[in-house]
Amino acid sequence: MILTVTLNTALDVTYHVPRLLPHASHRVRDVRERPGGKGVNVARVLAALGHGVTVTGFAGGPHGEVLRTSLAEAPGVADALVPCAGNTRRTVAVVDASTGDTTQFNEPGPAISSVEWTRFQARYQELLGTARAVALCGSLPPGLPVGAYAVLVRAARAAGVPVLLDTGGEALRRGVAARPDLIKPNAVELAELTGSREPLPATLAARRRGAHAVVASLGPAGLLAATPEGTWQAAPPRALSGNPTGAGDSAVAGLLSALAEGLDWPERLTRAVALSAATVQAPAAGEFDPRTYEELRGSVKVTSGQPD
Amino acid sequence: MILTVTLNTALDVTYHVPRLLPHASHRVRDVRERPGGKGVNVARVLAALGHGVTVTGFAGGPHGEVLRTSLAEAPGVADALVPCAGNTRRTVAVVDASTGDTTQFNEPGPAISSVEWTRFQARYQELLGTARAVALCGSLPPGLPVGAYAVLVRAARAAGVPVLLDTGGEALRRGVAARPDLIKPNAVELAELTGSREPLPATLAARRRGAHAVVASLGPAGLLAATPEGTWQAAPPRALSGNPTGAGDSAVAGLLSALAEGLDWPERLTRAVALSAATVQAPAAGEFDPRTYEELRGSVKVTSGQPD
Repeated sequence: MILTVTLNTALDVTYHVPRLLPHASHRVRDVRERPGGKGVNVARVLAALGHGVTVTGFAGGPHGEVLRTSLAEAPGVADALVPCAGNTRRTVAVVDASTGDTTQFNEPGPAISSVEWTRFQARYQELLGTARAVALCGSLPPGLPVGAYAVLVRAARAAGVPVLLDTGGEALRRGVAARPDLIKPNAVELAELTGSREPLPATLAARRRGAHAVVASLGPAGLLAATPEGTWQAAPPRALSGNPTGAGDSAVAGLLSALAEGLDWPERLTRAVALSAATVQAPAAGEFDPRTYEELRGSVKVTSGQPD
Repeated sequence: MILTVTLNTALDVTYHVPRLLPHASHRVRDVRERPGGKGVNVARVLAALGHGVTVTGFAGGPHGEVLRTSLAEAPGVADALVPCAGNTRRTVAVVDASTGDTTQFNEPGPAISSVEWTRFQARYQELLGTARAVALCGSLPPGLPVGAYAVLVRAARAAGVPVLLDTGGEALRRGVAARPDLIKPNAVELAELTGSREPLPATLAARRRGAHAVVASLGPAGLLAATPEGTWQAAPPRALSGNPTGAGDSAVAGLLSALAEGLDWPERLTRAVALSAATVQAPAAGEFDPRTYEELRGSVKVTSGQPD
């Protein structure tokens, strides 16, 4: 199985309003709620691709319970979440029907105690025993040491399990130093990590900081990869409009599944770009459209850059 | 005891953000959650005034459970809520720290089945047996007949229990025709009910539609009352700045408690205006500041209008 770790899981709530007016009162027409947090989203895409996938991380309180009940209904996703005393956070996305734009509110998440963190590490160690690959995804909840991902990266490497890290800020900086197999920063995270806003130099600089391979997501321009085997750029055949929510998580699922299947870099990037683009074009935020995915797989352009 | 009815209870969530920017992503700094819905807010104020108070209405699902757990911790408020299969709604208030303004999102609420409605009416009938007064508050959840409040008004009158109705739109129109003892519309609700935007004519018109007494809330200008004993205007001694959230619910609590204590109209209005103003000036939304309340009680100006 493939393991995804979401230390700060979320109950993602979507509100549809006719028009968002600051400082006004809105009747919400439509409320949707689903399990979220980057690793949970990645798991859903992996399951849709036919991979056995297990999710771990923390879940607790009434929101944690709703999340786990709902996760139990997701086909192909096994729940190995570790209970915590605090209440799992919500995120609220307000969709303005007049523009299609989304305004997002992210709660900070429950405070995790050191006992809970120790308990999680034991569970993670156990899960690594049967994992073919692991993705460590998203923000850290309050209370966890900022070096938490570095600890999890080292444990995966010691167990011989390929590890992808997808986070930002100081958690990324510390995690990268533990030498993960792959990181997938977006432009902002990459600039924070390296101090450079130039995609290619920044991607190469991120490798020098410790990541074996770096796949930077450049939004509509696709992905830029700096790896021990060389550098590549992968782009969709045309500009795609739609909702970018979840496109990064789909890219992670594409990279990780292709890695677990032993595919080479151009194939990994092709899959990641096609999935990502199929997510942007899907009618529901964070889901991918299988037909668009199949159609785009054949037309992603992968260009080899200078050898690294 | 005093009974308050909240058919569409809510879990009121407050998010504090540094600045609300439409179409941006916000990290919420501070999350607060408390039981809400107008009748629940009224009950909290009544309990703070030293009255025994019972809340009824519907609560269900995970949010209903959180609401009831939290209500159990509210001193002096007895829980007689009736379970429903649907999930109690949330409201989300986003407070912009840069301006102090609030942007509000109100979920519609759970669909109530006819079996649940019948079960509620039986419980309500039972509770009327020991109630000195009853307040019917807020919006109707989906599934209830629009004449629901009319049914509850008639039952209270048949039981000889004074009944206050605080709602809007068609539910108010239908409820008023059942001849409640008192309604407390705000300017918008009053205009919807009567077609007039002139406070005094509209208040008198609302009486002709069936309400024995009408107390219209005019925001910072205070209250305007049209009753069988005459008309009065009651205003705070000075303009008060602050958060108007919950001021209307405090006015209802003031009117209802004074009515239950057998006070006359000027005393009822004085209490309602002082509580309402003390709520506007309280640091936390929807709570009243007891010191401001005590201070203002002595200085509310009540003016008698022409006899009705």
